[in-house]
Amino acid sequence: MNKIYSKYLENAVNALSELPGIGRKSALRIALHLLAQPLDKVGHFNESIMKMRSDLKECKRCFNLAEEQYCSLCLDQTRLKSTICVVEGIRDVMAIEETGQYNGQYHVLGGVISPIEGVGPERLHIDQLVQRIHSEGIKELIMAISPTIDGETTIYYISKKLEMTDIKLSQIARGVAFGGELQYTDEVTLGRSIIARIPYAINGDS
Amino acid sequence: MNKIYSKYLENAVNALSELPGIGRKSALRIALHLLAQPLDKVGHFNESIMKMRSDLKECKRCFNLAEEQYCSLCLDQTRLKSTICVVEGIRDVMAIEETGQYNGQYHVLGGVISPIEGVGPERLHIDQLVQRIHSEGIKELIMAISPTIDGETTIYYISKKLEMTDIKLSQIARGVAFGGELQYTDEVTLGRSIIARIPYAINGDS
Repeated sequence: MNKIYSKYLENAVNALSELPGIGRKSALRIALHLLAQPLDKVGHFNESIMKMRSDLKECKRCFNLAEEQYCSLCLDQTRLKSTICVVEGIRDVMAIEETGQYNGQYHVLGGVISPIEGVGPERLHIDQLVQRIHSEGIKELIMAISPTIDGETTIYYISKKLEMTDIKLSQIARGVAFGGELQYTDEVTLGRSIIARIPYAINGDS
Repeated sequence: MNKIYSKYLENAVNALSELPGIGRKSALRIALHLLAQPLDKVGHFNESIMKMRSDLKECKRCFNLAEEQYCSLCLDQTRLKSTICVVEGIRDVMAIEETGQYNGQYHVLGGVISPIEGVGPERLHIDQLVQRIHSEGIKELIMAISPTIDGETTIYYISKKLEMTDIKLSQIARGVAFGGELQYTDEVTLGRSIIARIPYAINGDS
């Protein structure tokens, strides 16, 4: 790593290298790039970040990103009202929207229960989810949570909270990824996908 | 690439993905990271970048980074005054300083002559270099310029400008990199390093 002999440059490099995926070498490269830009362009760069940070909020209902009180998905009257897809974060909302396969509501938990990282259920938006299920008359809950120990724990915790309801609970299918090669699939996934095999309709009958 | 359904987020992602080495996926990851930071932390991030951009200038003498009129290297009275090391950019100054092998002055050209990219000598700080050589009584010029066609052209152009002087001109040694394996060294470098072979002192005599 090069010695940096300006405190202004050093501060900028420090700030940049705190960003995810940016090491000190990349941070220096970015800092020197910004240094070579016209002042108003750097101002515009800063403004777009500050505007995003200060004007974007959490949707009051589903905790997705929102420009107003409620997010654009919650406000969309064409979407199914009786189903909630429960996800960990807003990137999952984006990923699922990208598939075009879902047209219901979302609920962003803000993470998963993780004893190791000290994340208890009270740190997640689980109470708000339970409340929504009652107040919005939700019929189905799709758990689109990472297939990890923490993810399973979170699903189990939520399912326990809903024991007294007659809501339909499902989790997204796990198995071999489309385009994936069997030999490179880990044994747990492969084992489970054999146990959870799906009937194949010969001649289109099933 | 995920669909981005907030214009604030979209603007920030666009701005971030213009940085060198940042694709749209990384930009989204960084934007969502910044979104999750406290407002004052994002403010501090912006401030450090703006402070760097607005308060750092080019050294009036050598065009290195400077917080004041002159850079810290030009102001350092312990450095040799009669030698200038000519480099393309400020990252080269940093790299050479890092070696601890040089204790003279610098001159940052701001690039190399490149007919293909439309960079003529008038776009570089060559006139200022010639002026310094005369006014500062420079005795030696070390050309630490990239070993490329454009680099060679630039060195040749500067050498022509100095024909009428008795300055000592050198360029940094080219050859096999320390720790490099011969079989992976390109043929031009390897060929040149044979031609430019250095006498090896047997028994310490030479």
